[in-house]
Amino acid sequence: MAKKTYRSMDDFASACGVSRPTLSKYFDDPTLIKDVTRKRIEAALKKSNFEPNLFARHLNRKRTKNIGIIVPTMSDPFYVQVVSLIELKLRAKGFWPVQLSSHTRPELEEEAVRTLLSLKVAGVIVAPLGSGSRRSALERLTDAIPVVCFDNPASADLPFVGNDNSQSVAEIVQYLCRSGEPPIFLDVPHLTENAGERQDSYRAAMIKEGHSPLVIDCDAPPSWEFERLGYEQMRRILAKNGLPGKTLLCANDRFAFGAMAAAFASGLKIGRTETCDVRIAGHDDHPLSRYACPSLTTMAQNASEIAANAVELLLGGIEDREADRKVAVNKVILEATLVMRDSA
Amino acid sequence: MAKKTYRSMDDFASACGVSRPTLSKYFDDPTLIKDVTRKRIEAALKKSNFEPNLFARHLNRKRTKNIGIIVPTMSDPFYVQVVSLIELKLRAKGFWPVQLSSHTRPELEEEAVRTLLSLKVAGVIVAPLGSGSRRSALERLTDAIPVVCFDNPASADLPFVGNDNSQSVAEIVQYLCRSGEPPIFLDVPHLTENAGERQDSYRAAMIKEGHSPLVIDCDAPPSWEFERLGYEQMRRILAKNGLPGKTLLCANDRFAFGAMAAAFASGLKIGRTETCDVRIAGHDDHPLSRYACPSLTTMAQNASEIAANAVELLLGGIEDREADRKVAVNKVILEATLVMRDSA
Repeated sequence: MAKKTYRSMDDFASACGVSRPTLSKYFDDPTLIKDVTRKRIEAALKKSNFEPNLFARHLNRKRTKNIGIIVPTMSDPFYVQVVSLIELKLRAKGFWPVQLSSHTRPELEEEAVRTLLSLKVAGVIVAPLGSGSRRSALERLTDAIPVVCFDNPASADLPFVGNDNSQSVAEIVQYLCRSGEPPIFLDVPHLTENAGERQDSYRAAMIKEGHSPLVIDCDAPPSWEFERLGYEQMRRILAKNGLPGKTLLCANDRFAFGAMAAAFASGLKIGRTETCDVRIAGHDDHPLSRYACPSLTTMAQNASEIAANAVELLLGGIEDREADRKVAVNKVILEATLVMRDSA
Repeated sequence: MAKKTYRSMDDFASACGVSRPTLSKYFDDPTLIKDVTRKRIEAALKKSNFEPNLFARHLNRKRTKNIGIIVPTMSDPFYVQVVSLIELKLRAKGFWPVQLSSHTRPELEEEAVRTLLSLKVAGVIVAPLGSGSRRSALERLTDAIPVVCFDNPASADLPFVGNDNSQSVAEIVQYLCRSGEPPIFLDVPHLTENAGERQDSYRAAMIKEGHSPLVIDCDAPPSWEFERLGYEQMRRILAKNGLPGKTLLCANDRFAFGAMAAAFASGLKIGRTETCDVRIAGHDDHPLSRYACPSLTTMAQNASEIAANAVELLLGGIEDREADRKVAVNKVILEATLVMRDSA
């Protein structure tokens, strides 16, 4: 799409019989070029659909080809994976990605917004901090430039790409029920909307399967350090009453990593065979999940489609704004895929 | 604007009859160039409006408070950890970090350089791609602004912060020798200088301990996907002749993750107790290593000091340049710490 803009500039330049730099100069400041050339461009403009003022306004906005990306933390392999895919897609389309992390802190998310505005990026793809986000920060951004959210919607008014938690959690609950004991849900702190949606989906799916849901809330101060939370939660469970059942579904893979480490350290055998003590499943399929011992059964978020749709929505929004059209507020909710491995 | 500045430098250089690098060198430190050349520049300066000090200061004024960070890939938890620490330190000092990934591809490293120059960052902290880096890209950067390398030195002429592989590998070899069988070294592809240094250090340490070194080269096309390489290498080893010994030292934690996953999947018990089949150790202590099953014994790179020193050297370099001082080329080599866990 970016190329299209350049192409039409080029096309229009050759239609005028002038070079592309001369045409740019004309739109910047018509007095900069020779009278005869200026007249030629203006004659061509009259005969075309080009709206010189719109064009000039676009140029005057002085937006760059840079696109900002903000995520809560790069310590989360899922964000790393999606950001990496977004970056490669943007570069392939002629845009230059600039990635900033909120380091899970609202004041740093706000600083990231300021930095991106100062860099005059053309648009931003953001996974908001969620309950920690300062609304004012994202509002400054959305006032200025097109914004697309992924993973966690900041507001119903923004384009969004995310996972269908209702489908994904239901699917792994069904799988766990039909392959063994129904799962107990190990929840994470509710920092983003995903957490609530996943717990709701777990409860609904269990009832649909004819079982009583059992949710164990994370008994710790809210934090994004999910491996540590999972590790400590599992140790607390084992120290208190022992395992509450033979199958555990964790709200995300990082929490499952920590829970598995604590179970393993306590001498428990994790896996789906008869001789195992406990089955543990996760959600997300982050890049290291296949290398866990045992490899982690999980729901794979469609990282590649999340990235592709986020880029498409954003570039569409940039075009809309350039053409002074109302920016469409599209939502894309993507199904996840069950990945059966050895842990459950 | 960047090009305009470069153009006038070029114009002035040709007016003097000297090359652009020579002119830069003159402004950096007039004593660095030949007397006859210096006199020619000074004669031209007299005849022109150029004020060398003002000119230098003017260039500096155009720089922002943004600092670029380039790493080969954010799929490596070690880079994620160091970048995160660098970002927090920069923000604490009033600078705004902008992180770009080379996605392990030389052409994208070069694009990252272009992007950062276009963003007018005040300086760059870079972990170069290593053998894949295009020298020309980093030279463009170092001509323009202060640059500090970490993890892998791009050139002897640049400030550098890195790990003391000679100390770190020797220490873990000694530990493994005194606690069991001497280790066999599972090497990774030699993409950066670390790989060669670690293998050399392993060989030297084994000889010092009175053992014959045994290095198993990674039998696969070079790649940065170390978990996959480790997994496949271990499978090849097990399929061919079985385990070559009871203790394996992997060149980095990511490779160890993959090797452990393959060993576990083959039914081998990993750990340091009598009943275990194999001990596996790594190097780096990346953030997930403590949550491996079993938790990974490794050498912890001093991530926090690497980040602190990189930031300090860079901000020092920016100050030097602003004050028209010669930029110091400091090297900081940091020792790593043995972290004894359950895998070895």
